Amino acid sequence: MSTLPSTETLDTSEAYDERLLSRYEAVRAVSELICEPLAIDDYQLQSIVETSPPKWHLAHVSWFFETLVLSHFRKDYRPYHPDFNYIFNSYYYTVGEMHPRPKRGMLSRPTVEEIYNYRRHVDEQMRRLMAWVDSEQWDDLAFRVTLGLNHEQQHQELLLMDIKHNLSVNPLLPAYRSDLTESPVLVSPVRWEERAGGVHEMGHAGDGFSFDNETPRHQVLMRDHRLANRLVTNQEYLEFIDDGGYQQPALWMADGWTLINQQGWRHPLYWRSVEGEWREYTLGGVRDLNPNQPVCHMSFYEADAYARWVGKRLPGEAELELMLDEQKTVDGNFFETGYLHPATALPEGQWYGDLWNWTNTSYAGYPGFKPLKGAMGEYNGKFMSNQMVLKGGCCVTPSDHIRASYRNFYYPHDRWPFTGIRLAEDL
Amino acid sequence: MSTLPSTETLDTSEAYDERLLSRYEAVRAVSELICEPLAIDDYQLQSIVETSPPKWHLAHVSWFFETLVLSHFRKDYRPYHPDFNYIFNSYYYTVGEMHPRPKRGMLSRPTVEEIYNYRRHVDEQMRRLMAWVDSEQWDDLAFRVTLGLNHEQQHQELLLMDIKHNLSVNPLLPAYRSDLTESPVLVSPVRWEERAGGVHEMGHAGDGFSFDNETPRHQVLMRDHRLANRLVTNQEYLEFIDDGGYQQPALWMADGWTLINQQGWRHPLYWRSVEGEWREYTLGGVRDLNPNQPVCHMSFYEADAYARWVGKRLPGEAELELMLDEQKTVDGNFFETGYLHPATALPEGQWYGDLWNWTNTSYAGYPGFKPLKGAMGEYNGKFMSNQMVLKGGCCVTPSDHIRASYRNFYYPHDRWPFTGIRLAEDL
Amino acid sequence: MSTLPSTETLDTSEAYDERLLSRYEAVRAVSELICEPLAIDDYQLQSIVETSPPKWHLAHVSWFFETLVLSHFRKDYRPYHPDFNYIFNSYYYTVGEMHPRPKRGMLSRPTVEEIYNYRRHVDEQMRRLMAWVDSEQWDDLAFRVTLGLNHEQQHQELLLMDIKHNLSVNPLLPAYRSDLTESPVLVSPVRWEERAGGVHEMGHAGDGFSFDNETPRHQVLMRDHRLANRLVTNQEYLEFIDDGGYQQPALWMADGWTLINQQGWRHPLYWRSVEGEWREYTLGGVRDLNPNQPVCHMSFYEADAYARWVGKRLPGEAELELMLDEQKTVDGNFFETGYLHPATALPEGQWYGDLWNWTNTSYAGYPGFKPLKGAMGEYNGKFMSNQMVLKGGCCVTPSDHIRASYRNFYYPHDRWPFTGIRLAEDL
Amino acid sequence: MSTLPSTETLDTSEAYDERLLSRYEAVRAVSELICEPLAIDDYQLQSIVETSPPKWHLAHVSWFFETLVLSHFRKDYRPYHPDFNYIFNSYYYTVGEMHPRPKRGMLSRPTVEEIYNYRRHVDEQMRRLMAWVDSEQWDDLAFRVTLGLNHEQQHQELLLMDIKHNLSVNPLLPAYRSDLTESPVLVSPVRWEERAGGVHEMGHAGDGFSFDNETPRHQVLMRDHRLANRLVTNQEYLEFIDDGGYQQPALWMADGWTLINQQGWRHPLYWRSVEGEWREYTLGGVRDLNPNQPVCHMSFYEADAYARWVGKRLPGEAELELMLDEQKTVDGNFFETGYLHPATALPEGQWYGDLWNWTNTSYAGYPGFKPLKGAMGEYNGKFMSNQMVLKGGCCVTPSDHIRASYRNFYYPHDRWPFTGIRLAEDL
Repeated sequence: MSTLPSTETLDTSEAYDERLLSRYEAVRAVSELICEPLAIDDYQLQSIVETSPPKWHLAHVSWFFETLVLSHFRKDYRPYHPDFNYIFNSYYYTVGEMHPRPKRGMLSRPTVEEIYNYRRHVDEQMRRLMAWVDSEQWDDLAFRVTLGLNHEQQHQELLLMDIKHNLSVNPLLPAYRSDLTESPVLVSPVRWEERAGGVHEMGHAGDGFSFDNETPRHQVLMRDHRLANRLVTNQEYLEFIDDGGYQQPALWMADGWTLINQQGWRHPLYWRSVEGEWREYTLGGVRDLNPNQPVCHMSFYEADAYARWVGKRLPGEAELELMLDEQKTVDGNFFETGYLHPATALPEGQWYGDLWNWTNTSYAGYPGFKPLKGAMGEYNGKFMSNQMVLKGGCCVTPSDHIRASYRNFYYPHDRWPFTGIRLAEDL
Repeated sequence: MSTLPSTETLDTSEAYDERLLSRYEAVRAVSELICEPLAIDDYQLQSIVETSPPKWHLAHVSWFFETLVLSHFRKDYRPYHPDFNYIFNSYYYTVGEMHPRPKRGMLSRPTVEEIYNYRRHVDEQMRRLMAWVDSEQWDDLAFRVTLGLNHEQQHQELLLMDIKHNLSVNPLLPAYRSDLTESPVLVSPVRWEERAGGVHEMGHAGDGFSFDNETPRHQVLMRDHRLANRLVTNQEYLEFIDDGGYQQPALWMADGWTLINQQGWRHPLYWRSVEGEWREYTLGGVRDLNPNQPVCHMSFYEADAYARWVGKRLPGEAELELMLDEQKTVDGNFFETGYLHPATALPEGQWYGDLWNWTNTSYAGYPGFKPLKGAMGEYNGKFMSNQMVLKGGCCVTPSDHIRASYRNFYYPHDRWPFTGIRLAEDL
Repeated sequence: MSTLPSTETLDTSEAYDERLLSRYEAVRAVSELICEPLAIDDYQLQSIVETSPPKWHLAHVSWFFETLVLSHFRKDYRPYHPDFNYIFNSYYYTVGEMHPRPKRGMLSRPTVEEIYNYRRHVDEQMRRLMAWVDSEQWDDLAFRVTLGLNHEQQHQELLLMDIKHNLSVNPLLPAYRSDLTESPVLVSPVRWEERAGGVHEMGHAGDGFSFDNETPRHQVLMRDHRLANRLVTNQEYLEFIDDGGYQQPALWMADGWTLINQQGWRHPLYWRSVEGEWREYTLGGVRDLNPNQPVCHMSFYEADAYARWVGKRLPGEAELELMLDEQKTVDGNFFETGYLHPATALPEGQWYGDLWNWTNTSYAGYPGFKPLKGAMGEYNGKFMSNQMVLKGGCCVTPSDHIRASYRNFYYPHDRWPFTGIRLAEDL
Repeated sequence: MSTLPSTETLDTSEAYDERLLSRYEAVRAVSELICEPLAIDDYQLQSIVETSPPKWHLAHVSWFFETLVLSHFRKDYRPYHPDFNYIFNSYYYTVGEMHPRPKRGMLSRPTVEEIYNYRRHVDEQMRRLMAWVDSEQWDDLAFRVTLGLNHEQQHQELLLMDIKHNLSVNPLLPAYRSDLTESPVLVSPVRWEERAGGVHEMGHAGDGFSFDNETPRHQVLMRDHRLANRLVTNQEYLEFIDDGGYQQPALWMADGWTLINQQGWRHPLYWRSVEGEWREYTLGGVRDLNPNQPVCHMSFYEADAYARWVGKRLPGEAELELMLDEQKTVDGNFFETGYLHPATALPEGQWYGDLWNWTNTSYAGYPGFKPLKGAMGEYNGKFMSNQMVLKGGCCVTPSDHIRASYRNFYYPHDRWPFTGIRLAEDL
């Protein structure tokens, strides 16, 4: 028997904590909520190798629960479909071979309908499992479920970033949703927040969930510095463009200069000039460029070049983490505001949300870093080369997914994520 | 006013011939019939640059009527959607820029539903037009509608060839239809049909419809020769494989040798060896290889190498056309048999249908060839380089679409179409 | 003992014919004469995959004698170097594996000096062989030597075509020779030569040497037609350019249109516009464009598009062969004139030499064509797909290498050879 | 007048310091000494985009003196050749456009002879300049000459690394020199050198020359750790291979895993298995693999995977710099030993020389880093993304070119340089 007994027929485990289940239900629902505005036709798009089709995301996060939770606790668990381990594995080599990433857009089957059925099945099995495990296993279960939910939240971010890119290559420029509201248009001067150097601590502390890459907490040596309290705006970036920023090699990393010339980059990814006016493709369709909103979809190369042009630099990861840590609440323009686009900074500053902040810190393990055991160890550690750290979350990040110690990472050339520029400088 | 008055309110034209309309309705219905077994998810697949998504085919053939018929007769005709001329133009440069072919799989919008609405709209407009044009315009209309219907039939073939390839790249190997019947399994010895050489005539004759590339009818000089009365079978081709045919450079055109080694071709496209047994992916799913069925999905290079190995050659176009012309009826395993796969040859021979026969004739204009005027002139002539002629139709060709003088053409490396090998030799 | 006894110690064979040796010496000398103006540095260039380094040509033609002559007659012949069969084999799969063509430019060793030593060695062995074989073998020897010499002459053409391209990619635009004289600048109106259609004969006849692809002589059916008695000039082609010829899709084969847009072709290969004036890179360096000289380095696509623009067509192979056959002498601007560039047409016409004439005939075997046996069979037959026939020789062809039945072949996109446009039309 | 008066006719500058000239002469001579064993044919090879032809190196380092020294002090200096700024500029965008790097192998002109003449000319002008500048300019001159000489020394390293790769792609596997001696074959157990953590200082200190990227000297926070006193040997690396190291994804960075599978890496770059025995291509030709020599031509990915397999890690830059700084002398197997290959470690340890040590430190600017002004600012800073730091010099590094603070950098995938593995671990 490969599936668990139904919840009705079982005493629930002593360790059972309803909060885990209710969080499970809530997070899982958000993924489907995100996909609600899509036509079935939209579910299969893969515009570039970096993006995945929405239906693949929906299935992959379910496969994660099957593989790292259900099969872990029930050795007799029979996967929903024998081939799903092949087609919905993303990069976990320890659990077998996988379908090549660039071909995810070729998977018309399973259909969207079948994938929703798959989700239903996994959800039902997960409910039974949570009711069924005994108290000795509960901590392990809670950890694995929490990891799976954080994993799904990461894919919720990606779903929206990918949907945006996938739709953007269509000459019809369809909006993901045409009912999005725009953020208020306020002007906000930059204020600089200072910090004295010396030995500080960074990295995850406390009992709450964190990914392995946020640990161990450790000492860092910092210099006196200050950070801008908001992100660079479209208007400010326009001045860089108008000054010929994309034509001055001295502003660019050599690899970036090669890239922007090979690809012909002369402005941010989703900008287009229509009869002399800049317009921007957003999840709400094409809009006039709002000069006061943060400039978004920056590659590291563009962020770094802009900072050099303006005589500043990007923040270090530690500098930014400490500043985030100091905020009283994890508050900002996240997924829940419903803008799905970066908003103009509030007078009190712009720290969490809106756009992932590029740092000048290469993504590497902290001193003493140890990956998780087994397949879960493939989650973070193996990406610790060639990428840069980003901090703070963005306008498509679920608000309960982020924290000061959170380490996101992208390649310097990536610009389809929601990424922006915060300036820093030494004192 | 961009659309025609509805048929109810108009006297029908004097020239009006109901047969044109009924043929229109019949041909248009077949395209949709072909797509019936598809999930919406399948409509958007483009597995290789040569194939197109089914939804693109459905829209493109409708765009053809809008552009070359509706807009031609009604200068005030307003296209259904202003961007469709861009996204559903295939290669008609004279009517404007077009969406790049390799990106057809990225068009999630218009949705499948919208494309069916588009078809409804075009059909209604076409009905009105046929009722409305006056007698002077009737011949022009009839020609253009007939061209459009022949065009749509060509895409019906392509729809099935493309669907097959598009689904075949899915690791789940889904069947297009699981209810297909297989053809009878008879053994049929080859009989050779001879013809004396000398000056003969070829090319389209008579009043019936033909494409411009089948004209003018002209004289050709031929040699004494004979043709096999059926196609080469899987069993016969297996002997070539088992003899190391794919490893002997002397059998191959130089370009073919390079190709099969770069691509690692060692057997026909859809074959796969499962535990030592050959199996074949078909529109009905994976089946055991039937040794008596014609070997299919041959590139020209494979067909030519096989013929060399067996000490024969491929037929010339003229040789094959004359033999086809001699058959009493255009009869064979076409789309209507419902096999959607080549069938074993009947004792009386196998001439039309089953598989397009590669010839050793390069596709070029006949002496005195003149393309049609205007956009219709882009139909055939501009492809007259680098391709080879094929004759006879195949198991997914509508039976009323083919004739002896019909000239199909593919690149020597193409093997996703339904193509096979017929042998010939000089006497 | 792997080498032949020296000529001094041997009676020469009865069959010995001094003319073969003297022709051998003469042809071999020309290859080295062609390379005389090169710096050692120039010998190793391979600018595109189609061209080969001069040193590779020099060695390859010698390897041909080692492999198809010396080793054939002396089973104990020990090759000069055990690895040369690998690195100097061009495409003869029947004699073993070979170094990849795109990597020929990587062979700094053997050095130029060593390659000349290799040539000396092969020459000495060939002399001994010619003195040594007995009369029964003489005919076979004479055939193979003649084949080898014709092969070397083909590479002499290629040497000059390749040197031109190899040097042209250098920003210094070095001249191959700075002492070349230019042809006279005469104006010559076109005269059209007519021929009545009907059944004619073409293909090689008689005892003289020909390649296998020129045989068998056979009948062809032709139509009434006429040919221009000279090639299209730069001035005439400029009118095509100025009329937007490169921007009109209706003039181009579809594959050509794709190519010229991908590659950005807007004028012939070696043209460059310098301050509004057209200049042309030649083997004599950069020169002002001479409007009366034939336009050269045409791809088939350009030749075909030009002919369509001017309302004519390219000649068929048979049409051109018969016209060449009618000329009293094989006379024209060949290698020996020393121009190394096409010359202005003489009033009496321009048939042989100057530029290879593109025909509209796909390169294929003549009816009944049989390749030579063994490795020599790899010479021609396997290239009979995807290429077009060219006739008449060019300004870098040795004059005793060409004849009416000679069939050259290039891909439609090739434009680094000396190729030009002759017009034809039906009557 | 574009050149300086000859040294004979001038009083030498007051500031004139003969040691600068004699160092200039000595360094310049080494570049030519390195090229002495080359045939002219070898000077133009560019086997991969990362390597440059030896003749290009010889000219480029001279162009550096022309551009950053001669033209700087004499505004009327006329470059030796007007096009050399285009063809011998490597990446200095501030001084103009440049020939594309992948095409350096196409420059047969200027010839090797002309490039030696160019060197003679630059040397003569440099001598005159050093005799001519007045005392106010002397410091600037001395700095720029020293920078140019250090630049040339870097290219001396590259010359030998590039020559090795360029020759290695030749199937003849020619030796660069056949008279190289091999290092002694001693066995040396690893000893671990410990260091207590805390705040330390790193970066260049003192008056001596350093590159801008070695400054400013700054504090770093370190942990208790220890470093192996010698490099990993071939024997040790073989155990990794034999244990399936190249087949275990868990050992590899994700980007490395993708790379080794795409490229089929299963052993170090220059290793080849000949009849079951490992042999290695060296600058002295193919040799039996010496198990006690350091494993060389490691990519970062391989070094990192090996360290993970053995349960250690790579050193941080600071850890290694401090250890190097502690050595009494900069002593080791450098260019001057004449091995041109890594040597077996001596009992007292192996710190400088032999092989560049990969660190786990991403190449970035030190806190407060400021690039040099003008074109010299393009020397280092713009490469500070995507690369890793290496320390210590190697067997082709001139011994007076290296120091503890020296920062070399390569991409994680690079393996044509002389790179090796040193292990580290936390205490």
